[in-house]
Amino acid sequence: MESAIPLHLETQRSRHKRVPDDYQPPYPSFVARYKPAVSRVVMAYFGVQYRGAAPAAAMEALAEIGGRFAGECGPSHWDRAQYLDHTGHENVVSVAYWDDIARFDAWFEPGREAWTARQREGVGTFIEVLRPALARHETLFSSLGRPEGVAVIADGMSGEVQEHAYWGGMRDRIPLSQTDALAPGGAPELVRDGARLRVKAHDNLCLIRSGQDWSDTEASERKLYLDDVEPVLREGMDFLSDDGLGIGCYANRYMRVLAAEGSASEKSYGQSWWKSLAALERWAESHPTHVRIFGAAMKYLSTLGPSAKLRLYHEVTVAAADEQFFEYLNCHPKTGMLAAVETVGA
Amino acid sequence: MESAIPLHLETQRSRHKRVPDDYQPPYPSFVARYKPAVSRVVMAYFGVQYRGAAPAAAMEALAEIGGRFAGECGPSHWDRAQYLDHTGHENVVSVAYWDDIARFDAWFEPGREAWTARQREGVGTFIEVLRPALARHETLFSSLGRPEGVAVIADGMSGEVQEHAYWGGMRDRIPLSQTDALAPGGAPELVRDGARLRVKAHDNLCLIRSGQDWSDTEASERKLYLDDVEPVLREGMDFLSDDGLGIGCYANRYMRVLAAEGSASEKSYGQSWWKSLAALERWAESHPTHVRIFGAAMKYLSTLGPSAKLRLYHEVTVAAADEQFFEYLNCHPKTGMLAAVETVGA
Repeated sequence: MESAIPLHLETQRSRHKRVPDDYQPPYPSFVARYKPAVSRVVMAYFGVQYRGAAPAAAMEALAEIGGRFAGECGPSHWDRAQYLDHTGHENVVSVAYWDDIARFDAWFEPGREAWTARQREGVGTFIEVLRPALARHETLFSSLGRPEGVAVIADGMSGEVQEHAYWGGMRDRIPLSQTDALAPGGAPELVRDGARLRVKAHDNLCLIRSGQDWSDTEASERKLYLDDVEPVLREGMDFLSDDGLGIGCYANRYMRVLAAEGSASEKSYGQSWWKSLAALERWAESHPTHVRIFGAAMKYLSTLGPSAKLRLYHEVTVAAADEQFFEYLNCHPKTGMLAAVETVGA
Repeated sequence: MESAIPLHLETQRSRHKRVPDDYQPPYPSFVARYKPAVSRVVMAYFGVQYRGAAPAAAMEALAEIGGRFAGECGPSHWDRAQYLDHTGHENVVSVAYWDDIARFDAWFEPGREAWTARQREGVGTFIEVLRPALARHETLFSSLGRPEGVAVIADGMSGEVQEHAYWGGMRDRIPLSQTDALAPGGAPELVRDGARLRVKAHDNLCLIRSGQDWSDTEASERKLYLDDVEPVLREGMDFLSDDGLGIGCYANRYMRVLAAEGSASEKSYGQSWWKSLAALERWAESHPTHVRIFGAAMKYLSTLGPSAKLRLYHEVTVAAADEQFFEYLNCHPKTGMLAAVETVGA
């Protein structure tokens, strides 16, 4: 058993963990481990948005960003996912991960110009970037052997970690929580730059990407997941997308991961922006929509036991104000962090 | 909004609350407030145990303890409840509350002698007492107007308190949690005194009494409680009674409160002894049996909203080693804290 907090980020605590030192989690989980030289990771979401069938400009944009990712100083890993949002827009989001800030910075300026400074017929584009210090970031995986998201660029996975399977584990896995309450500071602001809309968010904004991979499940397990768990998960995701603002969820996307050739894979993830880690904790712990998700997942896992083939993971970041970037071009006003600010009139 | 921690027990924190200072609970709850002069309360459980119909000696014992309670230095309040335990024994438990240690001490020695030093035909008896400093104790009520348990001897009830409706609220309401992890120390030990068996427990043993009162519910609400919530609660209580030891629950009783004339009232409570507050937290937060209880209660309350007439309350104590007393005479070996020690052979 090891701590989710890497050794070199352990500090003298001024804030306690939520569980005693002899706490034993009831099942194993693992976290991504980076090379010690990695001090920061970058997670960059590049979205295209359109209505109905994909316009040519959308396909071109997707091909183009794929090409740029493959180019010099491109990300170590990227993936792509799609969802139909609650306003009826399709969104295809390409998520790229870097573990070298210098390479990201070299890549980003031209990448950004090409993405959100250029008008595309019938297509909106957006960029959402976090570049957190590792002390502001955590991951969790239910199994080994198939990293997803940021963990793909990690050096590898940990052994079994202690800080999971209890409410508060997410916070306890974030190294900075050893000394900091991770309280939010300020409110999001809209910054207009011609047609481009930027959102200046605030200190300790929180991002979660929480994924499901049912590609290894067979017969009865697959049916149990798709019939009993997924619909409950979808209902919770819909709540966050439609009505999350009142509980501190600025935006939520429940995405289907796309395979390399563009077809839907058997993987999904929810990605949401939160006012604070505390707001995310409160939803997860006590909101009826997530209590139902948790109940369905618990029932599923206790029915299947260690034989479960469903893979679950998440990555959570609590970003400092200067670790964030949000920019939108021709997107509807409920897109991502735009939902947190008033875009009309001003 | 006020803190559950009374003003005179607020101290400089070395341990943080689990929620930010601006946390707003989603619905109101209240705590018992004692007169400032009260530094300690006593909660004393006097049980009789038998098989089948109540023997004459059991009825005599119940009448006798009722008489003693009414006598000099008796408790400010007492109630009585009954349950059939998992070994098939009936147990009738009279619970008495004092807020004056001197009066309790004056009352207790003869009361104890009469209860556990005297053989009764076909009847076992037991005493379980905690006398915690107020800093080691908390209560919570879903509504005003009908205090139960220890709260009956309080000076009154608080206004709406902040520390509830999140996991960790129980700990945050205990004043000592401001500076202490409330970690358990040691293991329970059996002490034989002739036929009397005493259990010397350990520092920071935890007691919860968690009650339900459906006497005010009508028609559809009553049906919803009895059909959808109570069976799930019972299943969780049965788990703790039968299999709780592995997760740190030494003993659990799911009791039906008896009305003054001895018939069953429309009130119940679960009463359980735990190795630690942390063990109770882990069960409540993540064990499938309590997750189902929580889910059923959430569904019930969100269906009914503020019109719900069901009353819920609990009292929780984390007792120092010298604030505890457990004594059993002619009880089966799974009775109360006897379940935590080996009584055969030794």
